[in-house]
Amino acid sequence: MKLAALAKALPGARLRPHVKAHKCTALARRQAALGHRSFTCATAREMEGMAAAGLGEDLLLANEVLDARRLGRLDARVTVAVDSEETVGAAAEGGVREVVVDVNVGLPRCGCAPEAAGRIADLARGRGLRVRGVMGYEGHCMIVPDREKRRLATAEAMEKLLRAHEAVGGEVVSAGGTGTWDLNELATEIQAGSYALMDTAYAKLELPFERALFVQATVISVSEAYAVADCGLKSLGMDHGNPAIDGAAVWFCSDEHLTFAPQQRLRVGERIRVWPAHVDPTVAYHERMHLARGEDVVETWPVDLRGW
Amino acid sequence: MKLAALAKALPGARLRPHVKAHKCTALARRQAALGHRSFTCATAREMEGMAAAGLGEDLLLANEVLDARRLGRLDARVTVAVDSEETVGAAAEGGVREVVVDVNVGLPRCGCAPEAAGRIADLARGRGLRVRGVMGYEGHCMIVPDREKRRLATAEAMEKLLRAHEAVGGEVVSAGGTGTWDLNELATEIQAGSYALMDTAYAKLELPFERALFVQATVISVSEAYAVADCGLKSLGMDHGNPAIDGAAVWFCSDEHLTFAPQQRLRVGERIRVWPAHVDPTVAYHERMHLARGEDVVETWPVDLRGW
Repeated sequence: MKLAALAKALPGARLRPHVKAHKCTALARRQAALGHRSFTCATAREMEGMAAAGLGEDLLLANEVLDARRLGRLDARVTVAVDSEETVGAAAEGGVREVVVDVNVGLPRCGCAPEAAGRIADLARGRGLRVRGVMGYEGHCMIVPDREKRRLATAEAMEKLLRAHEAVGGEVVSAGGTGTWDLNELATEIQAGSYALMDTAYAKLELPFERALFVQATVISVSEAYAVADCGLKSLGMDHGNPAIDGAAVWFCSDEHLTFAPQQRLRVGERIRVWPAHVDPTVAYHERMHLARGEDVVETWPVDLRGW
Repeated sequence: MKLAALAKALPGARLRPHVKAHKCTALARRQAALGHRSFTCATAREMEGMAAAGLGEDLLLANEVLDARRLGRLDARVTVAVDSEETVGAAAEGGVREVVVDVNVGLPRCGCAPEAAGRIADLARGRGLRVRGVMGYEGHCMIVPDREKRRLATAEAMEKLLRAHEAVGGEVVSAGGTGTWDLNELATEIQAGSYALMDTAYAKLELPFERALFVQATVISVSEAYAVADCGLKSLGMDHGNPAIDGAAVWFCSDEHLTFAPQQRLRVGERIRVWPAHVDPTVAYHERMHLARGEDVVETWPVDLRGW
């Protein structure tokens, strides 16, 4: 499944693509051209970059911030997640006008308890903020291997979000991700991001999305048992483990090296494709992505939403 | 031990600081001011950046390259590692004039077999290259926990490098790192880099170097059992595992979040110091480093050697 196929399954505002996975306004523009005009961001810089690129029709910062002034001054529709009195105050003081209440639906990260959501919404309204609804990311369900178990875990998480939504009100129930895009039955909008590029961790779930992102590396040294390519820890997100190489066993990565055992002996100078285990922290290392058709680079996209 | 103390223990050219750990010419300039005028690099961009910063008196690219033209045109003394006919050819064709023969001393990565080193040196001389000597990084010894075992493993590795050096000749025997800086008795110069900033993996070795690098993060959400700070997988090298927080247990990192259990309840808005497990891939995520004395930022240094 490519971008266009998910745009059919989740048309327009049913998908709020998360830009943190690709950090690239050129790619976001392709998603917008397919009908998605609302986007999810994880950082203030992503919000700024999307607004500057003219993609600010409806930007959700699905994260808590304490200095929201960078958001309040954007030429864009800005909504920010809040989960405490402090983050409500920061949004109001930063000139933000709209918020969603971030609810903990089982992942121990940001988000208030479901039973506190109504109180946070009241606090926000008391500070003059419009409360668009709730958000609750079921990240702990995202890579549950078994699809049926993933569905059940998602339903349990969304039960919490439903309770919170009843107390908060508003038209938005924002949740979901690449692993639960068709399992989450409560969310009014799905925040999937990785689907656009994919990685080997998500690939294990047998999702319908195609892997599109690889690091192209050059073999710089060859021995009897192994070969060494010129990419490593500084070009690959490693929290989900080693990357993969088709037809080879990856041994280990160093800062600028990858040692692997190919099935067939390679020559120094050959190019290989290295598939990252986790797309988001991989992309964040790179200044640009090259769009390839077969062996040809047809476009080069700056990874312009990097940094903070 | 600070920069100045290692400059006393390994004065001048006895230390060839590796810039890959800090990727920062401002920090390299401090090392140069302490007497180290020869530096080690891992990428062509690091070589270019060091040359442009006027730190090109003696730059060693301790890595293999196949397109050496970026090196040949630098206004600097450039030496590059070679371990094959192809990399010798690339150096000669790229306009590089000096090389070291890179020898595999036990780490399965780049480097020719010790018994092939003489042949590689002959190939290089046949292409008009000056062979300065050998290099052999005992990376597999670097984080052996027991100091005596580390010494023995290093001696075994250096036995291989000695054999290679006898066949190659030249005045340079470049090896060593932060974990073996005082254990490597063969090397004429030590390539340590991490010593300048340190990380929690090296800290376990009880080396005399002080940890100096942390990510300053802000607490953005607090629950009964845990708190969440605003740094994560995109600001921390994760190949050596989770970072550390003094007085807290780190639970896990997400892209832009760190969930941890502090001993004492924190407030939203508090700043914390997050100590990375691996300095090199951590620094590579950041645009700049702030030099702090106590709580005050006294200088800001661009991480200007990032990328490739």
